[in-house]
This record gives sequence, C-alpha cells and structure tokens, in this order.
Amino acid sequence: MCDNNVKYTLALCQFASSEDKDESFEKASRFVGRASAGGARVVAMPEMWNCPYGNEYFSSYAEEEGDLSFGFMADLARTNEVYLVGGSIPERADGAYYNTSFIFSPGGDLIGKHRKAHLFDIDIEGGPSFRESDTLSAGDGVTVFDTEFGKMGVAICFDVRFAGMFSDMAAAGCHLVVLPAAFTLATGAAHWELLIRSRALDNQFYFAACAPARMGESKFRSWAHSMIADPWGDLRAAAATEETVIFGEIDRGYMDKVRREVPVRGR
Amino acid sequence: MCDNNVKYTLALCQFASSEDKDESFEKASRFVGRASAGGARVVAMPEMWNCPYGNEYFSSYAEEEGDLSFGFMADLARTNEVYLVGGSIPERADGAYYNTSFIFSPGGDLIGKHRKAHLFDIDIEGGPSFRESDTLSAGDGVTVFDTEFGKMGVAICFDVRFAGMFSDMAAAGCHLVVLPAAFTLATGAAHWELLIRSRALDNQFYFAACAPARMGESKFRSWAHSMIADPWGDLRAAAATEETVIFGEIDRGYMDKVRREVPVRGR
Repeated sequence: MCDNNVKYTLALCQFASSEDKDESFEKASRFVGRASAGGARVVAMPEMWNCPYGNEYFSSYAEEEGDLSFGFMADLARTNEVYLVGGSIPERADGAYYNTSFIFSPGGDLIGKHRKAHLFDIDIEGGPSFRESDTLSAGDGVTVFDTEFGKMGVAICFDVRFAGMFSDMAAAGCHLVVLPAAFTLATGAAHWELLIRSRALDNQFYFAACAPARMGESKFRSWAHSMIADPWGDLRAAAATEETVIFGEIDRGYMDKVRREVPVRGR
Repeated sequence: MCDNNVKYTLALCQFASSEDKDESFEKASRFVGRASAGGARVVAMPEMWNCPYGNEYFSSYAEEEGDLSFGFMADLARTNEVYLVGGSIPERADGAYYNTSFIFSPGGDLIGKHRKAHLFDIDIEGGPSFRESDTLSAGDGVTVFDTEFGKMGVAICFDVRFAGMFSDMAAAGCHLVVLPAAFTLATGAAHWELLIRSRALDNQFYFAACAPARMGESKFRSWAHSMIADPWGDLRAAAATEETVIFGEIDRGYMDKVRREVPVRGR
C-alpha cells in the first residue's frame, strides 16, 4: 500500500498532431517540458499524437515497439523525470495495427502498455461515421500498472463507453485513470463531460481525459476540452479547444475521504 | 419480443408526502389522475410517498404487503388503467422494515416488487449524514418485470450509485428503468443529473427518476427535479422543485436506433 496522504500534480498536454512527424515530436517535447516545468509528476499526451487521425494515415505512420517514437517517449520521460502516459500511436505488430498507449517511468522504463480494446465504429444518422476496424485490430483487457503514487490505469477513447473496464480498474486499486481520447464534435458535445465525470463519480477515483487540440486545417476535428475529474465527480481542470497544458492536483487522501463519506464500493 | 416501434407516454408524479396519510392518499389520487388524463400509460410516484422521510417515521407508517396503501395503489392503477410504479413505502415483513416499491398492472395486479438494495448510509463532512440502516433492512438483487411495452426495471434512490445493477437490467432486456428517489440538497446538486443521464447513456435505455417535491415545512428537504433521460443521455423532461407531473415519450425505435449507431453493448 502506498501512503494515502500522497499528493502530486497531473498535467494533460492538449496539442494537435501534424502530418510532419518531426513537428509532432517538437510539440510533444515542448508541451511535456512545460508540464514538467509546471511541477507535474505524471504527464499525459493525446490519442494518436504522432499521426493525423484517420484510417488513411494509421498504417503508414505506424511503428513497432522500440522504434523511433517509443525511444523518443522514453527519453521524454527520463529527461523530464515524469511518468509519461504516451497518449497513443499507431503500433505495428505481427502484420496488424493497433491504437496503442505506452507508459514510461521517470527512469524511462516501459511500465505499461494498452492497446485500445474497443475500436471506434459508429454510424450516426446526420452525424459522424467512422470505422477504425477497417484498419486497426482491437487489444483486449484492462491495463493497470504500478507507480510510486499507487496503481493507475489507462484506456483509450471509445473504451470510455464500456463502464465495466473502469469498475475493474477501481477493483484493481487504481486511484487515477488516464484516457487519451479524440472525440468527434458531435459525440463530444453530447457525451464527453458526462462520461468523464460519471466514470470518476461511479468509481470514486480521479479520471483524466487528454485530447488533441482542435485545429482548423485538419480533416478530423477533435472535440478537445481535455479535463480532470475528481472522485466526487467535480471537474478540477478543463481546457478549451486550443493547444495548452492543464494541471490538476491528485490527492489520495481526498479520494479516501469521499469513499468514507459515501460508501458505495465493495457492496 | 415486443414490437420495437412501440411508443407510449411515461409520467412522473412529483408530490410531497404528508404526516397525514389520508392527505398523501389524496395527493397520490390527484397526481396519478392528472398523469392518466394527460395520456400516460406508465406512471411513477416518489420514494416514501405515504410517509415523511426520516428514521423516526418509517416503523410507525409501515404496512404489510396487502394492507391499506397496497390496496390503494392497486385501485389507482386499475381506476386509471395505467402501469403504476408505486414509488416506495415503508414495508413491514417478518419483524423487519424495508423501503419497498410495489408495481401494478393496469388491471391492478402486482407485477413487480423491489426492496431498496443499498441503504442510504452517508456521512459527509459539513453536509448531510443519514443512516437508513438504523431502522431499515436491505433488499437484494435486481428487479425486472414484464409489461405490454417490454421489460422494465425499478430501483430506489441510493441504488442508483451502484452501476452494476443497471447494466444487469440492460442485459435482462429492460428498455426503461424507473427510480423513485429522494436525494438531499447537497448530493442532488452534485450528482442527481449526472447519475440519471449517465445511467441512461451507459445502458442506452430510458431512465426516469421520480422525486418528492421540495416542501418548505418538512425536515427532510428533497432535491426534487424529477427527470426523464433518453438512451442518448439527453433529458426529455425535467421538473423544478414544486409539485407537478412531467411527461415524456418512450420510444423503443429510438432506443434501437441509438444502439445501432453507437454499438457499445454485448462487447
């Protein structure tokens, strides 16, 4: 068990990926550096931070575990001395492609890896239609890992709609779940804040969603609005649509207090 | 299977109970009558509609199944030709007391019965403190019943915080869950709408919470704000704090459309 009085700062880097991978790397360096300089000990990046979001890009931008983007993220974590939830990138493995989040310790070691378990296949009348499964394969299972602050979990975007994943993470002892996520404008307006706050409230843990910024020129328009919700379901930090870093305090003592005051777990 | 094009009107009767049981009966008659006259085929009443909300009242107002309030509700359903979710009343059985909802068909037959499974035991610093378990015993399990419109479920108030009950109801085929519920002002302001909309969205069914009106003179002050959320998580109807009836259309075809467009169930 970790010390329940532990507090630390979480930062979410809301930036937009570029068609130019070097430019995405430059942004990642800059925003993670700002997060670290601002006192963050855990830093998250957005879904598909090194690749434009779209089926036509995933395979050509994909890399294997240990390749360039992987090494770059390990260096970022080590240089900035932070836990880095590396958003997600298109991963190539055994002839298939995944939407994968790599998580690194402040020493630069890989401590977790999540392949998006629920692919984004929707078809809304008069609204967005998308089939990630045309190019990507689904991962499976729940991703939980240890840190010096206690257990954390990571899931990706559409995973958020599957409540059972998150109750499993709570049961596994997570005090924080980070969700790299690029919602559409339509589903973002309807469901983004509702899902983030309810996952936090139902599981009485911290829940943070890190989105790409909304860029005028990109084909896929991200809802953006990265946010951090606390175990009471309140928002502790929220971004608008532009590129920015937001910070929030994670306080395990507050989580324990909420769980004592409104005991709804383990029944 | 029922016809998936079926539509009907649901009504929630938001009224306050009285210390005088006859007065509570008179209100129930009047509001259920208004609901029926307004075209509702399914009508719900609030939690503890025949008894002031408080541990000091439950045992003295309690009745057994088949007693006065039970017969009154059966008559209300038959007279108005509606499915009646009879809010809840304090039930005495085998020397114990329960917070129980009886559900009647338009013919006046008992078709469902739910004993609140999760008692309201909270103790919030600088906020409300309450221990239903000082006087009441907990029921168990999930309550689902058949109607001519398809399967429905009923849970009561604090049950709403236990998400697994509702995913079980969705798995059992419910298209609507009704929650008689008296939230406090503090937890109502923080969580009421969030919980109602997220239960509806996560399970892609209709979710309706029927509260007592907020009355100036009562010791327990109900958050009120009865509301009906649809399978997209949108509100279809919402009350303020006064005594009223609200109506919402339940449309199984719309539910099926949402489930087709954003397929998140059964994975």
